[in-house]
Amino acid sequence: MVKESRVDVLIIGAGPSGLMCANALAVAGVDFRIIDNRPIGVAAGQADGIQPRTIEVLQSYDLAEPLLKEGAQMHLCAFYNPGPDGGIERTGRAADVTAPTARYPFKITIAQASIEALFIESLKSQGISVDRPIVPSSLEISQDPEELLDPSAYPVKVVLDRILPSGTTTEQEIVHAKFVLGADGAHSWVRKTLGFTMDGEQTDYIWGVIDFIPDTDFPDIRNRAAIHSSNGSCMIIPREGDKVRFYLQMADKDVMDPETGRIDKHKVTAENLINTARKTFYPYTVNEPKQVDWCSIYIIGQRVASKFSKHERVFISGDACHTHSPKAGQGMNASMNDTHNLAWKLAQVLRGRADISLLKTYELERQKYAQDLIDFDREFSALFSGKPRTSENQEGVTHEQFLRAFQASGGFSSGIGVHYMPSAIVDTIHQGCAPNIIIGERMLPQIFVRAADARPVEIQDMLPADTRFKLLLFAGLLTPEQLTKVRRFAEELELPTSFLQKYNYPAEGKAQSMFDIISITAGHKDDVNFLDLPPTFRTHWSKVLIDDMDVTGRLGGGAYARFGIDETEITMVVVRPDGYVGMIAPSTALESMDKYFGSFLIGKTLNP
Amino acid sequence: MVKESRVDVLIIGAGPSGLMCANALAVAGVDFRIIDNRPIGVAAGQADGIQPRTIEVLQSYDLAEPLLKEGAQMHLCAFYNPGPDGGIERTGRAADVTAPTARYPFKITIAQASIEALFIESLKSQGISVDRPIVPSSLEISQDPEELLDPSAYPVKVVLDRILPSGTTTEQEIVHAKFVLGADGAHSWVRKTLGFTMDGEQTDYIWGVIDFIPDTDFPDIRNRAAIHSSNGSCMIIPREGDKVRFYLQMADKDVMDPETGRIDKHKVTAENLINTARKTFYPYTVNEPKQVDWCSIYIIGQRVASKFSKHERVFISGDACHTHSPKAGQGMNASMNDTHNLAWKLAQVLRGRADISLLKTYELERQKYAQDLIDFDREFSALFSGKPRTSENQEGVTHEQFLRAFQASGGFSSGIGVHYMPSAIVDTIHQGCAPNIIIGERMLPQIFVRAADARPVEIQDMLPADTRFKLLLFAGLLTPEQLTKVRRFAEELELPTSFLQKYNYPAEGKAQSMFDIISITAGHKDDVNFLDLPPTFRTHWSKVLIDDMDVTGRLGGGAYARFGIDETEITMVVVRPDGYVGMIAPSTALESMDKYFGSFLIGKTLNP
Repeated sequence: MVKESRVDVLIIGAGPSGLMCANALAVAGVDFRIIDNRPIGVAAGQADGIQPRTIEVLQSYDLAEPLLKEGAQMHLCAFYNPGPDGGIERTGRAADVTAPTARYPFKITIAQASIEALFIESLKSQGISVDRPIVPSSLEISQDPEELLDPSAYPVKVVLDRILPSGTTTEQEIVHAKFVLGADGAHSWVRKTLGFTMDGEQTDYIWGVIDFIPDTDFPDIRNRAAIHSSNGSCMIIPREGDKVRFYLQMADKDVMDPETGRIDKHKVTAENLINTARKTFYPYTVNEPKQVDWCSIYIIGQRVASKFSKHERVFISGDACHTHSPKAGQGMNASMNDTHNLAWKLAQVLRGRADISLLKTYELERQKYAQDLIDFDREFSALFSGKPRTSENQEGVTHEQFLRAFQASGGFSSGIGVHYMPSAIVDTIHQGCAPNIIIGERMLPQIFVRAADARPVEIQDMLPADTRFKLLLFAGLLTPEQLTKVRRFAEELELPTSFLQKYNYPAEGKAQSMFDIISITAGHKDDVNFLDLPPTFRTHWSKVLIDDMDVTGRLGGGAYARFGIDETEITMVVVRPDGYVGMIAPSTALESMDKYFGSFLIGKTLNP
Repeated sequence: MVKESRVDVLIIGAGPSGLMCANALAVAGVDFRIIDNRPIGVAAGQADGIQPRTIEVLQSYDLAEPLLKEGAQMHLCAFYNPGPDGGIERTGRAADVTAPTARYPFKITIAQASIEALFIESLKSQGISVDRPIVPSSLEISQDPEELLDPSAYPVKVVLDRILPSGTTTEQEIVHAKFVLGADGAHSWVRKTLGFTMDGEQTDYIWGVIDFIPDTDFPDIRNRAAIHSSNGSCMIIPREGDKVRFYLQMADKDVMDPETGRIDKHKVTAENLINTARKTFYPYTVNEPKQVDWCSIYIIGQRVASKFSKHERVFISGDACHTHSPKAGQGMNASMNDTHNLAWKLAQVLRGRADISLLKTYELERQKYAQDLIDFDREFSALFSGKPRTSENQEGVTHEQFLRAFQASGGFSSGIGVHYMPSAIVDTIHQGCAPNIIIGERMLPQIFVRAADARPVEIQDMLPADTRFKLLLFAGLLTPEQLTKVRRFAEELELPTSFLQKYNYPAEGKAQSMFDIISITAGHKDDVNFLDLPPTFRTHWSKVLIDDMDVTGRLGGGAYARFGIDETEITMVVVRPDGYVGMIAPSTALESMDKYFGSFLIGKTLNP
């Protein structure tokens, strides 16, 4: 008798992508299971850069704090190029994060194991753990079109083999799942089983990587540093404590087996890498390191999966759908943001509150992003792996070229420039109401002052990833005329035909209600009375904010002007559960809002 | 056979004062024991205001975070006075914290139980718990002057009675202690046993206090609010969640027993207090509360103990040495800061690194503070309890009078203005080197940029309460000439005769070394090379700071100018282990520094 079971979502793979999904589903109260083929999580090495946008996302799950405490932060990037005497010299230092709207103006480095631990701890506090080691051995999706469209059906059958402590024998189980996520890494079994290809190419740049505690007189050893020397390039990434990571460009002869023409892993030793570093760093010295944690070598491959989803029933995410160079520190970020995008959609579909077609937006949004990432990586890698321009090599890459590319890509590489195209959930028709809040991008950070108690609050902290749509009601300056308009709008929203009534399922167990209204007035904290707003727009005293400075005059203020919102109008900004702006509309365009939500939500009357 | 034991420090009382001491001693690795006569900690009510300075202090023990997360914050204070129609009206709103150098520009309210839990959790993580319920029954101090001066002697004998689970029987124990702290509350047994008197007086103002979840249309229900009505005064203190505390001035007839002339506790009901509030709040309504947590009544007594210490062997702290009105929210702050002042002194004396005379500074510093507190409370209570000025009552307190007193006392009531007078550990001779860093006050908060990695750091976060003296070396602008001076000063400090060598005991177990050097240069983060400083002034890459702005241009910078420090000189600021500035000196006055430390530290050669 083979054991059989049912689950709403089966997650295959407990790396950052699978764990992000698991945690988001757990918080949402969705029935799921997460399995992994490794007996324990990763130990050393592996991806470990966290971008400013990813910090914001982790903050929306209340997971950023340990990261901010334990991780190393990169604020400055230093650039070194060949000097007149053949050695390197500093060309300059610049802010490492150039996106002006970054809430966290730095990148973080931390071991992947620490990121995984964040999620694993959070899951544990909810009574959930990763089931491991388990290997999937077959996956079948129903061919029945009706079944595929029925969100309550279990059209995916997966056979799992549990590896028993003996290590050789296994125990088989058949799982029937509504949805399956393959977050099973670059060699994804799920991707291969679905028959998706990885499209792209492999470069011939060979890079070594070493994590160690250095002993050096190089002055930028705790900054991110990009070194272009006549003897090869190096990227320095400071890490937790006193550790540092070097990415080192390797010459073929140092790492290739001359007979096979392939990398000879035996040649990849810490000593070999440190010696390469010494040549690159001259005239600075790199002494025998105090401690070496890990070293490895890789060839850059830049590929994107042909599809991210099969029938919106089986999805792939993370390294399973994109591989690229680690130096720009994007990998783990892209992986976590894939499932951050997917999880709320799965939750709303499984609750019967959103149409299953909502899931099509996952591939739409994330595949385009992955392609952009590969394009960015290709350009960046080529510039960084190329020879620097010197008097002998006039064809080389100049510092100005590199710096320009570095700064131009700041929005993208920080994760802040991610922009989702118009779709069912991105409606740009009323963009003009708030021209500087870009629909399809994440909601900008901004400090407001809470009307009831003048406490400064960061608006992003009022946008937790809790599957709710946040309705930011910019109510304007509350003159008597404006208050009349505000009250009228509240009355319209109270009508049973308005989206706010039609789709506002109440909270139920761990499932939150569909909407959360946050009112933001213009005016001064000395004057505003939050009780002036109609009850619809102040569901709790903490939900009314003022666009004003805090008592010190150092935080907040100026948002209406910065966002381009008119203080004499009423403007609604709809923020999706993942923090991205889905639509903006004036109070006079209630039918636009009804239409937006109607395009992917299921009305309460249809689902009694 | 009565059990006998020895301990370095016996703490009697596990309220905020005793627990602060216990935690500080635990972190320092000092042998101590803490006992309490209650079977469990406090539940509802009791003191619960945390001042800005106390937040800084808790932060120096890494305990502020849960407080900042869970507590309510008071940013604004609203003032209400009688309006022309007999009811109250708002006269204005103003910042609740008026001290311009507050790092946290707000006060926090949180249940005393939560504060105690902070310490109890911290102790637990170090394997220590409060021993309870235990009642002391006798205390004797040796009369032998030699024994009293010998830090390794156990001159205090305390008999303890452990209350067994039966509740009636007890088990006796004799404890021989080097030092005893009586943190046993307003009715302190230790104080009475020592024969210290409480000097001061009782006012005839009667106040009721109620903690509840209000239902009202009063617009400042989440701000601190001071209401002067013709029907009595009220102070509103918002608390955690939706809870609010009201302090209500009670009329004699409402609470007194007419026959005895004493307070009739039966008259103190929530209903009675809410009815009083209704009269005060008119024309605003106070509806039947959703939930009442606690209520009580009190008469203000303002008293300070005649002595804080006996032979520097038995000390009292907290409510045991000062009682006053709760409305200014000072009680728990004064109590915790008493033992914050004492703990590091005890630790250094017990380690044999400081002379026992150092302990004299406890009474010197804290008794004066307590007297100032009583004086402040007397004035504030009188103004607040007095009738407001109206057309009928031209003798009443005007809003301007009250506001002026409120703002003038901002430095004091925030805890930030606390100023310790010259003593062995407060040497003001070179105040002129940094005129705006006031010797005897706490080190100002200031953001600097870390030289090695451009990360902005708050200097207060580099001043943990770890029993070390922090030497802030303002090294100036590192021109070649300045670097020569800096190197010469380093050489002088390396001489065996300098205080840095003579008193710098190395770390040993949990006992930290005596000094921690933090270098602060002028200049720009794009240029400074932290490796230019001599090794004495950069014991770790994280210990060199720059007075510059961070990459966003929003944090840091301007400290040399603000502090009044010359960039072409070398200035040393000595910060005591409790965060107070002990002395300032130019590099040319090394003998002043030697003399300062020599006056209370014991040189290594004397203690081989």
